[in-house]
Amino acid sequence: MDVHLTDDERLDWLRLIRSQNVGPRTFHALIHHYGQARDALAALPQLARRGGASAPGRICTRAEAEREMAAASAAGVTFVSLGEPDYPLRLAMIDDAPPLIAVRGELAALAQPTVAIVGARNASAAGIKFAERLARELGEAGLVVASGLARGIDAAAHRGSLTTGTVAAIAGGHNSIYPPEHAALADAIAENGVVLSEMPLDHEPRARDFPRRNRLISGLAAGVVVIEAAQRSGSLITARMALEQGREVFAVPGSPLDPRCEGSNNLLKQGAAPVTEAADVTAALRPIFERPLQLSAQEPDRPITPSEPREPTRPGEPKGPSDDERARLVTLLGPTPVGIDDLIRLSGLSPAIVRTVLLELELAGKLGRHGGGQVSLVPPI
Amino acid sequence: MDVHLTDDERLDWLRLIRSQNVGPRTFHALIHHYGQARDALAALPQLARRGGASAPGRICTRAEAEREMAAASAAGVTFVSLGEPDYPLRLAMIDDAPPLIAVRGELAALAQPTVAIVGARNASAAGIKFAERLARELGEAGLVVASGLARGIDAAAHRGSLTTGTVAAIAGGHNSIYPPEHAALADAIAENGVVLSEMPLDHEPRARDFPRRNRLISGLAAGVVVIEAAQRSGSLITARMALEQGREVFAVPGSPLDPRCEGSNNLLKQGAAPVTEAADVTAALRPIFERPLQLSAQEPDRPITPSEPREPTRPGEPKGPSDDERARLVTLLGPTPVGIDDLIRLSGLSPAIVRTVLLELELAGKLGRHGGGQVSLVPPI
Repeated sequence: MDVHLTDDERLDWLRLIRSQNVGPRTFHALIHHYGQARDALAALPQLARRGGASAPGRICTRAEAEREMAAASAAGVTFVSLGEPDYPLRLAMIDDAPPLIAVRGELAALAQPTVAIVGARNASAAGIKFAERLARELGEAGLVVASGLARGIDAAAHRGSLTTGTVAAIAGGHNSIYPPEHAALADAIAENGVVLSEMPLDHEPRARDFPRRNRLISGLAAGVVVIEAAQRSGSLITARMALEQGREVFAVPGSPLDPRCEGSNNLLKQGAAPVTEAADVTAALRPIFERPLQLSAQEPDRPITPSEPREPTRPGEPKGPSDDERARLVTLLGPTPVGIDDLIRLSGLSPAIVRTVLLELELAGKLGRHGGGQVSLVPPI
Repeated sequence: MDVHLTDDERLDWLRLIRSQNVGPRTFHALIHHYGQARDALAALPQLARRGGASAPGRICTRAEAEREMAAASAAGVTFVSLGEPDYPLRLAMIDDAPPLIAVRGELAALAQPTVAIVGARNASAAGIKFAERLARELGEAGLVVASGLARGIDAAAHRGSLTTGTVAAIAGGHNSIYPPEHAALADAIAENGVVLSEMPLDHEPRARDFPRRNRLISGLAAGVVVIEAAQRSGSLITARMALEQGREVFAVPGSPLDPRCEGSNNLLKQGAAPVTEAADVTAALRPIFERPLQLSAQEPDRPITPSEPREPTRPGEPKGPSDDERARLVTLLGPTPVGIDDLIRLSGLSPAIVRTVLLELELAGKLGRHGGGQVSLVPPI
């Protein structure tokens, strides 16, 4: 995991992840297949055509990537690639880890034991007070506090841990802080901690970017503390992602008469550990922080290092699946997510062929990827 | 368990339990030994002397017991003996079940599936509102709600279940309702439910009577819901007794900033089931109510029916332990509670001898009995 990309390689990575229909999972699958981002970029048009795209997805040009790099540099933002020393180890272990993170601040904070605190935007005064106190005490106990820079609990968690170190994972780009009134808070966070984004610098966050961002908050941390989460709230999405990522989930108890506590109290019913003081968190996480991080927990599709794929890099393009094989797999797919293992078993095709067809479909904008390695067909709109 | 005492037998029971140094456990041990309360009463002076009492403990006279019976009758209070059809089955299963309960109201409520709700006297408005709502919903779900008639949560729990049926276990006698301003509430409870006491009619409750009473609240119920309990509060004593009695313990989550929720939140940390609505309680208790009550769970020392002791009634007095055997056991005892099983093993004496010596010591005011069948020597004051 001690990789250093050349500037050119980093530029190719940026072009690949910024290209149409390429998300983190597709990125990892492409690198797995092609070894180098440059080879994957060259193969994109043909893969998308094979997947049935009427027009090839837009590929990020070298000039665009160079402009983003320059703008980032001007804004004090650095790109860190998955596998590089500054990339947070725990985040690297989630199966849709961003290939590149754009970070601003004291990068050393990303190497510290981290716990996330999330909760309601419309939090109560008591909730805000408790979040700030908990964050301060966890900071004093040597933990970095991760959150989402949102109003309410998130902001309180950051404020409580400004001096000890806090990480804000944001849903938009660094030049589009949301909510706008938290721009100053983001600056303060960057003094001892880090503001982190996987989005282009000027990206304005849309509704769907927030759940996606939530996986970064839980991914950065060994555990997530939920304070005042209503039912169907973003904080519960973070809790669910934490569970999927094998993180600890904590919930702060609250009055059953306060709808803002319904989600967090339900987490307690589902087995989340109750938290009323920092010691509840530190006692539960200490053994986890003491265990060395095992990267073996990562998805089999992920290369160990981007430059050294597990399978030998084949010169040129890998042997493609036949039309018959493609059709067989597409027939098995539908709008309901299914496991890739099931597809391999039911199709009788080799894992390599199945993955290639899925990749083609994805690059054609026809495949949806879901948690737990599941995929579905995206219905034509 | 379908016992009917004659009026004379009930009077003997009352005399025995009202005699000095005779608590529920001693009562059961005496009945176990002597079969009849009358024979036990006759043996008391000699047993106490053997236990080393300088003066024999005061024995309740027949006239005193008759006066209490008459006063109870005038106050609309009935005595129900352990084993009689109106005695609550679940309460009968605790190892220090009161031999006689003095009850007022609709005795049918004592045969219903019961859940207890207890909590802070200085409860918050939200806590009181929630307690009343929870009690109403549990009542509508067919459960009787037991509590302790205290200010705050207890009173709210009774109020919420007045029409569906509620049981108040009180620490004093029926003519000494505490707090006094709850006399009207007690009357309202008695219309569809029951006010229950094990104390003499005019007994004014002392501080130590409340923890003792708490075992009745949990003993009546299949589970105890704790709302707003501070650390070291009476509600936590009820929760502890519920655990010792094998009852379910539930806790309502509350803000970590409210000291009134510290105890209940700690119960959550210790594994109590979180409750935010009645369904949390009913779902957990339904399988328990569906199981037939097994009286085999009772202490081995307890006779199955008072008139039919397990061991054959011996004519006159049972063969007493020798002075040497007495001394051997006293040497093993100290201020630290120990198990009776350990005493039997370490002394090499028969269980019957050990129990007799313990009984003598208790009647001499020298033995303390503790939860889990443990005993200790009471240090001379």
